[in-house]
Amino acid sequence: MRVCVVGCGAVGSLFAANLATLGDVEVWAFDLDKSHVTAIKKNGLQLIGAGEVLGRLEATSDPDALPPCDFGIVATKAMHAAAAIEATAHAFADGAVATVMNGVGNEETLAAHVERVIRGTTFPAGKLVAPGVVQWDVKGETTFGPFEPRPLEVAAIEPLADACTRAGMPASAVADARPGQWRKVIFNAATNPIGALTGLTHGRVCERADLRSLVTGLVDEGKAVAAAQGIELDTDPEALIDHAARPDVAYGHKASMLQDVESGRPTEIDYLNGGIARFGRELGVPTPLHDTITALIKGVEASWQ
Amino acid sequence: MRVCVVGCGAVGSLFAANLATLGDVEVWAFDLDKSHVTAIKKNGLQLIGAGEVLGRLEATSDPDALPPCDFGIVATKAMHAAAAIEATAHAFADGAVATVMNGVGNEETLAAHVERVIRGTTFPAGKLVAPGVVQWDVKGETTFGPFEPRPLEVAAIEPLADACTRAGMPASAVADARPGQWRKVIFNAATNPIGALTGLTHGRVCERADLRSLVTGLVDEGKAVAAAQGIELDTDPEALIDHAARPDVAYGHKASMLQDVESGRPTEIDYLNGGIARFGRELGVPTPLHDTITALIKGVEASWQ
Repeated sequence: MRVCVVGCGAVGSLFAANLATLGDVEVWAFDLDKSHVTAIKKNGLQLIGAGEVLGRLEATSDPDALPPCDFGIVATKAMHAAAAIEATAHAFADGAVATVMNGVGNEETLAAHVERVIRGTTFPAGKLVAPGVVQWDVKGETTFGPFEPRPLEVAAIEPLADACTRAGMPASAVADARPGQWRKVIFNAATNPIGALTGLTHGRVCERADLRSLVTGLVDEGKAVAAAQGIELDTDPEALIDHAARPDVAYGHKASMLQDVESGRPTEIDYLNGGIARFGRELGVPTPLHDTITALIKGVEASWQ
Repeated sequence: MRVCVVGCGAVGSLFAANLATLGDVEVWAFDLDKSHVTAIKKNGLQLIGAGEVLGRLEATSDPDALPPCDFGIVATKAMHAAAAIEATAHAFADGAVATVMNGVGNEETLAAHVERVIRGTTFPAGKLVAPGVVQWDVKGETTFGPFEPRPLEVAAIEPLADACTRAGMPASAVADARPGQWRKVIFNAATNPIGALTGLTHGRVCERADLRSLVTGLVDEGKAVAAAQGIELDTDPEALIDHAARPDVAYGHKASMLQDVESGRPTEIDYLNGGIARFGRELGVPTPLHDTITALIKGVEASWQ
């Protein structure tokens, strides 16, 4: 089986390095960061932190160098997915492409360029600390499932989930991957931009009654948009938010969007709050709080120009 | 007639220096900034910019030094008003005290300490550039009127308005000063914190359709709270907002709250969006957008600790 990770940043590297430890999977990494690609080719892809892994794999910044693949795993930032899949789609002409990106709407982006799309949500996280070296911060589950407009059989998705699981990245192939995806996007959209706008860690956002109430307002709008699609959330995002606020979990965690804002990097707002609001508009579900937060974060981004 | 300006910062200094040019008004300034007080006593209070004025007046940081006054004009930041009027109330035992502070709810603060309160709204603005020296940036009207729970006759307010007008600070005494006050607070609350949260100038906020729509949402909630009190706005805040966005007016203006946030200073959010939301709760008018903005700005303030 040949798998290509498209966008081999922090999350992509977790998949690529772990899958490369399997004897029966050939792994390719496609990434535009040439120093990262060069380091991977020379020294392998190294994970440190929550797991110590050294994966030997092929890597390239040249889409034409990619061979035909059975599976793709797209792990770019959501706003780079369209360009990445447009460049690499030819490698998946006979394969299927999964997204493990944040937010909602990414499957639709992939489906504009490849025939077989796999819905996906992943929880593991890390950060690139040097070319070829990624710190693995958080372990967690990955869920794959059919993309409903052109659904694959679950059996066609299982080989990918099975390979990930055997490689140390527990994954499952399910008939409906939307509940996990919406639970995650609601969690992220209700907390991430609040940290980004205020500068507060997850725990400090949650301990302020007024901000916690805003978080609940955002969760409620997200739940309404999920419900309008017939999605039954498997876990209440509220419980996850309270759990993460515990001092022994992620009280002091700076949301990734806060890190983006502090570094002046474009955020994934269009795929989090903006994505929920877009689905809401299509379904006739009002999302005034997500609209407000989206407009404010996009205003922050505009202030850098 | 003896007038004491309580809080002789930028706006207070505009009143104090101009009133001090009148032969028939004795002016006192009460301020906790000792270097400012010392400079005023030594060299007078100097205005530069929109008007060149040198006012000779008494100044003190010692509330016990204040003589009985006919009128007070409280011009502190809104969050300092309670302490300032508590300290100086004895000087107004037989007088009346006007507020020219930003936001709503300030009259209630004064009324907890003095018997006769005058509702007030002022548009002139400036900034303290050195001890004893204030730059006068913007000229404009001041409106005084009765504080409804214990209303003074308009005739009892006219001497103060008349003195301001004669001194070059046009002011009027009206039967209902609430329309002008609510027009101003709605304008400020709909625009100031959006600039503060995004870092954008007034003009750039207004040219982004998503943020301009958020501004309108905030204006609409403010209008509903005003209407529930029977207040008929004299001018639509929307028109003022569009006017201010013009390149020849205030396109490039950084909202005072943005200046506060950039300097890590407490903002007046509790008296702007927080004030509108508080009146809304008392009147049963929902203000979810003002609640959201208030929570976010208070989160920003909390992030500095």
